[in-house]
Amino acid sequence: MSDHSNAPVAPVEAYEPPYYAAVFTAVRTPAQSGYSETNERMEELVKDIPGYLGMDSAQTPGGLGISVAYFRDADALTQWRTNTEHRAAQERGRAEWYESYTLHVARVERSHGFTRGEVPKSPKTG
Amino acid sequence: MSDHSNAPVAPVEAYEPPYYAAVFTAVRTPAQSGYSETNERMEELVKDIPGYLGMDSAQTPGGLGISVAYFRDADALTQWRTNTEHRAAQERGRAEWYESYTLHVARVERSHGFTRGEVPKSPKTG
Repeated sequence: MSDHSNAPVAPVEAYEPPYYAAVFTAVRTPAQSGYSETNERMEELVKDIPGYLGMDSAQTPGGLGISVAYFRDADALTQWRTNTEHRAAQERGRAEWYESYTLHVARVERSHGFTRGEVPKSPKTG
Repeated sequence: MSDHSNAPVAPVEAYEPPYYAAVFTAVRTPAQSGYSETNERMEELVKDIPGYLGMDSAQTPGGLGISVAYFRDADALTQWRTNTEHRAAQERGRAEWYESYTLHVARVERSHGFTRGEVPKSPKTG
């Protein structure tokens, strides 16, 4: 396990367009057995996808959760979508963990970032 | 003020592509005077933009906040981006409320939704 839990939180930065974003918004059920472990495993697994750029997640307690994963191209996204272990997790999510969700897959056309006290910089090419 | 605070939370549903998503991820400063009021005002104001489809927001306490606003087309997004009152709010955000943020503007190419106990349905044309 890495010791990054106290690292300062920062959003995934702006990459040079085009790139892809998978926006997953969900409301969870009360049945959350196994959810955290699977979620952590998925967060590790996705890092192995060539072209994966990063992920932002936020969860309002008792409310909506949003995760946005960024990928360099559509191929990277397809690899992630069809990953066997990820598919099993999706299936279990529908069976147990999610009351409702929406997935929006989108091509980023424009982006920019802001960091307090920093001069604006060019998007990351990564 | 509307009395919707106890309405069940549900993510914005899948619309028929293409449509646009503006993904705003942010970490806030400790200086939050005026933030809530402005945020509520923006959530009302955006509803007047023709082509506005909805917004999802989530905030991890002490962590990242994510808001995703959906629009039917690029024109609607431009109207929102250049709205005078919205621009003033953005300016104040950079001056006071945000430690860092990233904005990703993306064209949704594919989407689907899931609701527990419902038969999958076609995307909303709205």
